[in-house]
Amino acid sequence: MTEYTAPIRDMQFVLNELVGVDRLAQLPGNEEVTPDLLEAILEEAGKYASGVLAPLNQSGDQQGAKLVDGKVVEADGFANAYQLFVESGWSSISQSSEYGGQGLPHVLQSAVSEMWNASNLAFSLCPMLGSGAIEAIEKHATDELKETYLHKLVSGEWTGTMNLTEPQAGTDLAAIRTKAVPEGDHYLISGQKIFITWGDHEMTDNIVHLVLARLPDAPKGVKGISLFLVPKNLLNDDGGAGTRNDVRAVSLEHKMGIHASPTCVMAFGEEGGAVGYLVGKEHSGLACMFTMMNHARIGVGIQGVAIADRAYQQAVSYARDRVQGFAPGVDGPAAIIHHADVRRMLMIMRAQTEASRALAYVASAELDYALGSKDEQLKQAHMARYDLLTPIAKAWSTEVAQEVTSLGVQVHGGMGFVEETGCAQHMRDARITTIYEGTTGIQANDLVGRKILRDGGRTLMALISELEAFEGQLESAGTSMVTINNGYREGLKALVEASQWLKTKGLESPNAPGAIAVNYLMLMGTVLGGWLMARSALAAQKNLKNAGCDENFCHGKLAIANFYAEHLMPRTQTYLAGVLAGDSSIMAIPAELL
Amino acid sequence: MTEYTAPIRDMQFVLNELVGVDRLAQLPGNEEVTPDLLEAILEEAGKYASGVLAPLNQSGDQQGAKLVDGKVVEADGFANAYQLFVESGWSSISQSSEYGGQGLPHVLQSAVSEMWNASNLAFSLCPMLGSGAIEAIEKHATDELKETYLHKLVSGEWTGTMNLTEPQAGTDLAAIRTKAVPEGDHYLISGQKIFITWGDHEMTDNIVHLVLARLPDAPKGVKGISLFLVPKNLLNDDGGAGTRNDVRAVSLEHKMGIHASPTCVMAFGEEGGAVGYLVGKEHSGLACMFTMMNHARIGVGIQGVAIADRAYQQAVSYARDRVQGFAPGVDGPAAIIHHADVRRMLMIMRAQTEASRALAYVASAELDYALGSKDEQLKQAHMARYDLLTPIAKAWSTEVAQEVTSLGVQVHGGMGFVEETGCAQHMRDARITTIYEGTTGIQANDLVGRKILRDGGRTLMALISELEAFEGQLESAGTSMVTINNGYREGLKALVEASQWLKTKGLESPNAPGAIAVNYLMLMGTVLGGWLMARSALAAQKNLKNAGCDENFCHGKLAIANFYAEHLMPRTQTYLAGVLAGDSSIMAIPAELL
Repeated sequence: MTEYTAPIRDMQFVLNELVGVDRLAQLPGNEEVTPDLLEAILEEAGKYASGVLAPLNQSGDQQGAKLVDGKVVEADGFANAYQLFVESGWSSISQSSEYGGQGLPHVLQSAVSEMWNASNLAFSLCPMLGSGAIEAIEKHATDELKETYLHKLVSGEWTGTMNLTEPQAGTDLAAIRTKAVPEGDHYLISGQKIFITWGDHEMTDNIVHLVLARLPDAPKGVKGISLFLVPKNLLNDDGGAGTRNDVRAVSLEHKMGIHASPTCVMAFGEEGGAVGYLVGKEHSGLACMFTMMNHARIGVGIQGVAIADRAYQQAVSYARDRVQGFAPGVDGPAAIIHHADVRRMLMIMRAQTEASRALAYVASAELDYALGSKDEQLKQAHMARYDLLTPIAKAWSTEVAQEVTSLGVQVHGGMGFVEETGCAQHMRDARITTIYEGTTGIQANDLVGRKILRDGGRTLMALISELEAFEGQLESAGTSMVTINNGYREGLKALVEASQWLKTKGLESPNAPGAIAVNYLMLMGTVLGGWLMARSALAAQKNLKNAGCDENFCHGKLAIANFYAEHLMPRTQTYLAGVLAGDSSIMAIPAELL
Repeated sequence: MTEYTAPIRDMQFVLNELVGVDRLAQLPGNEEVTPDLLEAILEEAGKYASGVLAPLNQSGDQQGAKLVDGKVVEADGFANAYQLFVESGWSSISQSSEYGGQGLPHVLQSAVSEMWNASNLAFSLCPMLGSGAIEAIEKHATDELKETYLHKLVSGEWTGTMNLTEPQAGTDLAAIRTKAVPEGDHYLISGQKIFITWGDHEMTDNIVHLVLARLPDAPKGVKGISLFLVPKNLLNDDGGAGTRNDVRAVSLEHKMGIHASPTCVMAFGEEGGAVGYLVGKEHSGLACMFTMMNHARIGVGIQGVAIADRAYQQAVSYARDRVQGFAPGVDGPAAIIHHADVRRMLMIMRAQTEASRALAYVASAELDYALGSKDEQLKQAHMARYDLLTPIAKAWSTEVAQEVTSLGVQVHGGMGFVEETGCAQHMRDARITTIYEGTTGIQANDLVGRKILRDGGRTLMALISELEAFEGQLESAGTSMVTINNGYREGLKALVEASQWLKTKGLESPNAPGAIAVNYLMLMGTVLGGWLMARSALAAQKNLKNAGCDENFCHGKLAIANFYAEHLMPRTQTYLAGVLAGDSSIMAIPAELL
């Protein structure tokens, strides 16, 4: 019931046909990124995910992380699994080789991250946050700090955390109160942070906290926030972990899901001040924070894909085994997989999972293309595309995961509600993904405000032009693509109309952008998913002409794209209506009368 | 955070304007059903719900029911709350006066049930299942059994359960194996039942189990199932509870939600056979079971409404208090209720809650009209309408509750994922409602098969005619109804088109009805919800002309109907597309290749 098989075949298909591994391999430093290398890495990662992480998922949920005598003790088996993770080099795949990383593409990191998250979401949060910390340090810290901390963070010998939220400062970081007072070559940090994922544990001998705080003379608001590196243990002269710093986990949240991931309330400076080191310039913490956040946002999008796939796999397995009633074309009692309504649910689950995977990988690869492009204009175009796609890959994939994991429970019927079965855990675990690292509403505001309106819609229009050009390609592909083309055309038309509305009326009322943003994001996610499904179908159709092609696999890709076009693309009409309605009926009842 | 206020004003509005209390009062036996009486009952019920049940909701979730030394021990406070429930007469509101009931309308029962379920879903399951047992006994049992058991069930002195499911027989009751062997004036029952809600507890001195089982000579399949009454304790000569019968709870499920409601595995006849009495004729258990199920289905629909309202109330309260960032038109830091995207979520929650409440009450009242009508044709028409609306009120309301409770978590942001806050419990509790008493898929099959195709669409067409006539009424209502009318017209058009497809193509493929059923049901639920919201708007508009009218309340009804028309009615287009697509892309990937 709780098994997991990495969907390597599907991943390779996305990498080869949609991301373009051949193009990736042409980027400087990527010469060795061959399909064979990718396959070898994916297979090894799949073994680790299925064999080591997946078996700890349910036991981790049941046991949870515990705070014992001031220390956070992780669930049984997690420390060994983490050690194996580090020894196998999984911590450093896409990290820079300057600090011991393997320098492989970010899109490959996304693929293996999908496996970690599908097999054990709670575990995977630990390395995910570490990656964010690494990126922030690498981009913004002094050479000395980099030299001191990065090697061990990259190897995974130490883990990293992000300390942003405070009770009064969740989405609104301007409200942060944690203080940093200069003292010699360092600062003394004091204050309380909440919702700190893997804020403490016993798996490694040190933890590197990145902490947002205010200097004494800091301006108010977000322009007065600085970023600090605060190690759990101060370092000895040899660079190893030494005496305890003045930071500790004081309590753990009792959460709906991801029980094995300790969500800590962290107290800094209860005994005078935690020693911290400035990362980046004074008062520039917000920019540094965004470095961590952007990274984490794609990561959370991948979590959505991952947990959706896990739920799908489990639902298919149950539907195949569970015999109940009769179905057309089946002699005698039938497994429920033969019931049309169960099949409908499984197809929604599969289509959404495949579409959101495609989008998340394609988005990740834009970062590789941006970093690897020598032409400045090309580099900027890829980076802009990456920035545009990030909030969609985060929010749409995780919203999709809510639906998919809930359908997973529904396919199981009464057994789905029983925790023993395991699928309820996927739904509970998935619930956080539309919230942390910025809620769906925040992603949608980022998309509409920062990523579209700020550059006058230039990056968006470049993408829409590409989508329009693809319509021609679909049209010339013949009758087998008619259904897909019909769905695609309607969806794209809706996106164009919504974008037009955004441009002409989006600023007529101050509440309009916020009111329409989520509908706009969901519309765009659905259309992009359909675009990638249609591209998959074209690739599958082409592959079918090759000798030795796996016909079942290719027909499956065509069938799922058809299903997406007929059953999921029509959702764009509802989202479009939500955009065109603007903010008037949303704001019609005064707040005090709700 | 976990407070609950019964929405008496909204309930009265539905009862007065949509159900028609004046018409109800004209039915024989209902002469005393005045608005004043209803108000008095609703207010008393509201006090009990807020004051007694609501405070036990979170503690019941945390503590859960426990199996201790072979007995199920309910959570702290539940026994006292149940005693008060019985003493206050809440058990017998709509029960027949022949056995001590108060004979009040079923729709009033629905309204107070909403309060019980909103304040404490786990608790409320106990009386809900008792009502189903009462109805089955009253309709099908011998006079002797009725006389012996009904008085104490109606008063609530004893509780009742429904024992249908076995491990191999969930949705498919044909697979039931529990045996009943005749012995003297009774039968000896043996077998195992699972998912038995409140199958055991210590709140009363007896429990009356209704159990589906097979006689030795029974035909195979559903035509060989009979219904038996099996008391937990055999009766003494004075009719009171005596020695233990051979039935016991052997384990409890560990569930995602409704922790305080014990979900029991029941063992009958481990020591030779549990004494049971035949209810109804031999082999006619399925018909008796449907009596219980239909009752319970409306009841579960009410649960959907209830938990949605609870989630809405909590989300509004949090959004009013939580200050975060800035919002247009608000000086300084703003409560999140002023953010347009939060407002959008709250409006979706409120609109869906109000629409599903209206539908559930209107459906319940059809039973009152059916039972109270002397004209046979009218009686049949009301009963057919009740039967048609029941699967929609069950499935649509509970699907809506999934969305609403999940949005409730989303409004809370990170705090929503923390169990302490309480809104995660609503989502976990709500998750069972689309599953038990027949999944959404089963309700949809019931709607499309039994309720529409079986009578050639006659009952459906009568309803559609009424919906079409209402369109004319809306059109003549003036410009303030234009938005509502536009939404309504589009929705109704979609329903007519989908119904036409069902009639002409619904039987062309054996998988078609199953494939389109859920989309059809959701389409119909959405349109019916919109119809009732539009009727509410007309009533509010009319009321606004009355002196002394509460203008805020009436403007609120107009605003919420507008929102529904603009933001929720467009979902009908997606459901319609799902119907028109039929089963081809749903069944395109062979089961073995999923």
